[in-house]
Amino acid sequence: MAKRVTGPEIEKLIQLLAKVPGLGPRSARRAALHLIKKKDQLLGPLSHAMGDAYDKVKICSRCGNVDTVDPCTVCTDERRDQSVIIVVEDVSDLWALERSGAMNATYHVLGGVLSPLDGVGPDDLNIRGLIARVSEGGVREVIIAVNATVEGQTTAHYITDQLDGLEVKITRLAHGVPVGGELDYLDEGTLAAALRARTTI
Amino acid sequence: MAKRVTGPEIEKLIQLLAKVPGLGPRSARRAALHLIKKKDQLLGPLSHAMGDAYDKVKICSRCGNVDTVDPCTVCTDERRDQSVIIVVEDVSDLWALERSGAMNATYHVLGGVLSPLDGVGPDDLNIRGLIARVSEGGVREVIIAVNATVEGQTTAHYITDQLDGLEVKITRLAHGVPVGGELDYLDEGTLAAALRARTTI
Repeated sequence: MAKRVTGPEIEKLIQLLAKVPGLGPRSARRAALHLIKKKDQLLGPLSHAMGDAYDKVKICSRCGNVDTVDPCTVCTDERRDQSVIIVVEDVSDLWALERSGAMNATYHVLGGVLSPLDGVGPDDLNIRGLIARVSEGGVREVIIAVNATVEGQTTAHYITDQLDGLEVKITRLAHGVPVGGELDYLDEGTLAAALRARTTI
Repeated sequence: MAKRVTGPEIEKLIQLLAKVPGLGPRSARRAALHLIKKKDQLLGPLSHAMGDAYDKVKICSRCGNVDTVDPCTVCTDERRDQSVIIVVEDVSDLWALERSGAMNATYHVLGGVLSPLDGVGPDDLNIRGLIARVSEGGVREVIIAVNATVEGQTTAHYITDQLDGLEVKITRLAHGVPVGGELDYLDEGTLAAALRARTTI
């Protein structure tokens, strides 16, 4: 804006909102106006929720999950099978897998993948913590659920090597056709993998 | 999420973020994780900015703009031509027109448009305030810049009627081809209007 049309506090709010992923400069303005219109229903509560999260957020020292307690809700959940660890790149992957409701296991968040080009080596990831958890014993299976990218697969191989010698079953996610997906839109690699891993009906 | 995977404070933050326009349940989770990762650069400052906005935001009693002072920054700007009032539906329209930098005028925010179906009558809009401002004198031109919808045009007619008898020039935004727009994608009404209002080169 060339000339000021509103107070500096509101400009500041718009500037910060524009840094939230999913919002840009334009939608940040729209969001700010909406928040201001819903002052008591949204702006106030959101401000408090952010302050609360800021004060209380912790990274689980065991698995790397984001929570307000350490160890986190997942690590201390006794109804979960603590002998299975699902290894993910990021907390968002943990939450996504958990939404599937398919497993009742625990997790281990690496915090990224190996990427020599970006200068990310094994020590930058939470791999040592994983080895330690498995070495302690009581772990039956490690499911490596990293993204199906080149870096993800490199990381999977590295972790498999590191776990070599420890008595644990190492598995990875199946490749195949996404449920509800149309074959025509899928890449050749996925189709080839789905054919190779075909199952009898 | 079927089972809890994180603290209630973080769940609450995600729930509230999902109500921000531009964010949905999925992007709210992504936004929350990003905010938490950028705790000191983004989450803290944003929480403060929201609290600040909550405490200080005011609606300008003169024009209806959102600001932290009343009368607002626009109404008290002496470098602006106070004899021209641009009438808009919403604060977002005020900000949008201001970004164009085309006028150095003041504004009047109606807070909506007449819509009998939604039960919005003249008394629900800030029309009386506009009449009062014009009646006070010193206003040379009222530019009616409501949206080019049926309700917008109805509102424009109503305001024109109400201002009848007061010594003020009433204008509206030009219809035509958007700058950079392709004719093929435009509706017939816009093309017809652009042809009728053609100008010599």
